[in-house]
Amino acid sequence: MKIAVINEISAADKNAAILSALAGRGYEILNCGNTGLMSALLLHLRAVDFVVGGCGTGIGYLNSVMQYPGVFCGHLLTPLDAFLFARINAGNCVSLALNQGYGWAGDVNLRLIFDALFTPETGTGYPPHRAEPQRQGRELLAQISRAAHRSMAEILLALPAEVTRTALNYPAFRPVLQSAVATAPNPDPTLTSVIEHLLESAPA
Amino acid sequence: MKIAVINEISAADKNAAILSALAGRGYEILNCGNTGLMSALLLHLRAVDFVVGGCGTGIGYLNSVMQYPGVFCGHLLTPLDAFLFARINAGNCVSLALNQGYGWAGDVNLRLIFDALFTPETGTGYPPHRAEPQRQGRELLAQISRAAHRSMAEILLALPAEVTRTALNYPAFRPVLQSAVATAPNPDPTLTSVIEHLLESAPA
Amino acid sequence: MKIAVINEISAADKNAAILSALAGRGYEILNCGNTGLMSALLLHLRAVDFVVGGCGTGIGYLNSVMQYPGVFCGHLLTPLDAFLFARINAGNCVSLALNQGYGWAGDVNLRLIFDALFTPETGTGYPPHRAEPQRQGRELLAQISRAAHRSMAEILLALPAEVTRTALNYPAFRPVLQSAVATAPNPDPTLTSVIEHLLESAPA
Amino acid sequence: MKIAVINEISAADKNAAILSALAGRGYEILNCGNTGLMSALLLHLRAVDFVVGGCGTGIGYLNSVMQYPGVFCGHLLTPLDAFLFARINAGNCVSLALNQGYGWAGDVNLRLIFDALFTPETGTGYPPHRAEPQRQGRELLAQISRAAHRSMAEILLALPAEVTRTALNYPAFRPVLQSAVATAPNPDPTLTSVIEHLLESAPA
Repeated sequence: MKIAVINEISAADKNAAILSALAGRGYEILNCGNTGLMSALLLHLRAVDFVVGGCGTGIGYLNSVMQYPGVFCGHLLTPLDAFLFARINAGNCVSLALNQGYGWAGDVNLRLIFDALFTPETGTGYPPHRAEPQRQGRELLAQISRAAHRSMAEILLALPAEVTRTALNYPAFRPVLQSAVATAPNPDPTLTSVIEHLLESAPA
Repeated sequence: MKIAVINEISAADKNAAILSALAGRGYEILNCGNTGLMSALLLHLRAVDFVVGGCGTGIGYLNSVMQYPGVFCGHLLTPLDAFLFARINAGNCVSLALNQGYGWAGDVNLRLIFDALFTPETGTGYPPHRAEPQRQGRELLAQISRAAHRSMAEILLALPAEVTRTALNYPAFRPVLQSAVATAPNPDPTLTSVIEHLLESAPA
Repeated sequence: MKIAVINEISAADKNAAILSALAGRGYEILNCGNTGLMSALLLHLRAVDFVVGGCGTGIGYLNSVMQYPGVFCGHLLTPLDAFLFARINAGNCVSLALNQGYGWAGDVNLRLIFDALFTPETGTGYPPHRAEPQRQGRELLAQISRAAHRSMAEILLALPAEVTRTALNYPAFRPVLQSAVATAPNPDPTLTSVIEHLLESAPA
Repeated sequence: MKIAVINEISAADKNAAILSALAGRGYEILNCGNTGLMSALLLHLRAVDFVVGGCGTGIGYLNSVMQYPGVFCGHLLTPLDAFLFARINAGNCVSLALNQGYGWAGDVNLRLIFDALFTPETGTGYPPHRAEPQRQGRELLAQISRAAHRSMAEILLALPAEVTRTALNYPAFRPVLQSAVATAPNPDPTLTSVIEHLLESAPA
């Protein structure tokens, strides 16, 4: 599994703690930026399977990343939150509170959260007898997400230039994006040509 | 202020506790349904100023309601969460955890959360010196929300029929919606005519 | 390791969840009563190594059990609490909140707490470089406990009769106590003869 | 009401936040030391009505202060904890977690906790219909505390010299103690003469 770590500026000093808490689990970790747009692009291009993001309270990043289609995000404060999110929501993104409530052993708490989050039980439902309606709920949510959003290519063109430019020129993100659009299989050719166009018009 | 209470089925038994915790604050409360779509429609039609929603963990409703444009939602477990959400995010919706962690005095906790949530300090920033960048962040988020989503009218037409039909035929919601589309000033004529069309083709 | 489960009446319905969360760890579990006195007696007689107790908020049981000498008790709400208590305080008792905050998956949370609590890292300190002052702190606390309390034998004689009688006649506790006083090695002969005297004068 | 603020060394940097969160409530605040013994002495001499203490997790101070007779202590992490402690336990001491979970707006959380803690509803029970058994429980707990502990005078003489000496020579505490033993009415003459003796033999 490939996981991107995406951290709002307000919580940039907690990046090392997240990376350390994710270490040693056999995942490939991309530590590459700080916005909801970056997160959504990496998921859409299948450059990563999962995004671990956060901000001071977790709510800012969550609202930012959830503007985009195909993003399903938890807000995880305790291992129990992670246990339930994995089973019920089985999303592709989590938002962490990295200043509020983040004190002594905050790094340990992150490790305990990831212990509970990355589990083969993902999507098996909680309580277990609710597995099937919860699976249907996730499918319906994905349909609603497609109905409610423009395509990622349309979104990139409609976003304020400051948003796309900031993301595409972010030093740790630009090469990841370039590599993602260059790599087959290509899940969305229109999206990749829009990205290529934007990368050219916003040179590093 | 008009507040809608929107509760997923998994937490329907906590509805009375929410209404009771909201009582006596001088707000007009609409207790009217259970989906993200209902929440978004009420906000778009300006039928309410704020939506209080929730589900078992708070994460399901949050992911549901945030599929729609113009919805900015907190996940509130403690009064401190509410204090910070009001100042930093100043959104128009909150999602409550109504089964997980909801034990003894869960109703009291709701009251303490609402005490901290509905405050004249809304949008004043936290920490205070971050007020201006946080205000800019909220404006940018609203722009991103518009860029990333279709219009509510387009969404209503694109959604699976089961989603729109369930919402529009929900007994406590249908009359609220009918009243909202009939009431001037009309913030979105295309949306109201789509709703009128759907109400006619899905008679109660 | 032998563990007693001691549960105040207000939370008696959570007993099964505690036993289930403790199951399968290779510990011998005594499920035997509901007061601080019982907890302290079992620890003093070395009938158990550890007591898992609780009440509605965890604070009532904690105040009850900590009246007695030689009891060092944590108040554990999350796995992180357990992680830190094991390393820093390394006590012989914990108090759980079994009504407040105990909602959906409360039983899962108990399991995650016990996963973090029973660890070979007990007493190794947190942060690790504080291991030695924390070890000294625990030794000093044990000295203070001995200086501040009467002996358990004196306490049994000084307690209101209703307290001792209730404990000694508690059906699940009386046989455990009888077995404990009968079993060598005897850590405190005065205490065992006081208990034998009280058991005789308060026949089941 | 007179409140002492008693803070373990590990959390000394949070002292200002506690004092600030207590300010403006019309209480007389003594900010005077860092051990369980100091807390217990101030309560026994009626030099204060209430002690606000804490340490990294709250559990160390709690175990320290609860070694002494007549101390009934909560462990408060959220306003709801404070709400319930005031109504159910109505103790004379609280222990705060001042490093674990103490992040952004930790100072605000302290204020919200004190808002809920200091209330005319103290001792009125929760749920309300349990008021009478909870009142009886508090009285029984006070009896047990007297039965289980030596007197404060005996304890002072039995404690390791390093414990009494550290407390009595603590710069902010010594004058408070001297003033307390000099002030009528004297709730415990034996205790005050032991303290006077110790103050003389351990000159500042």
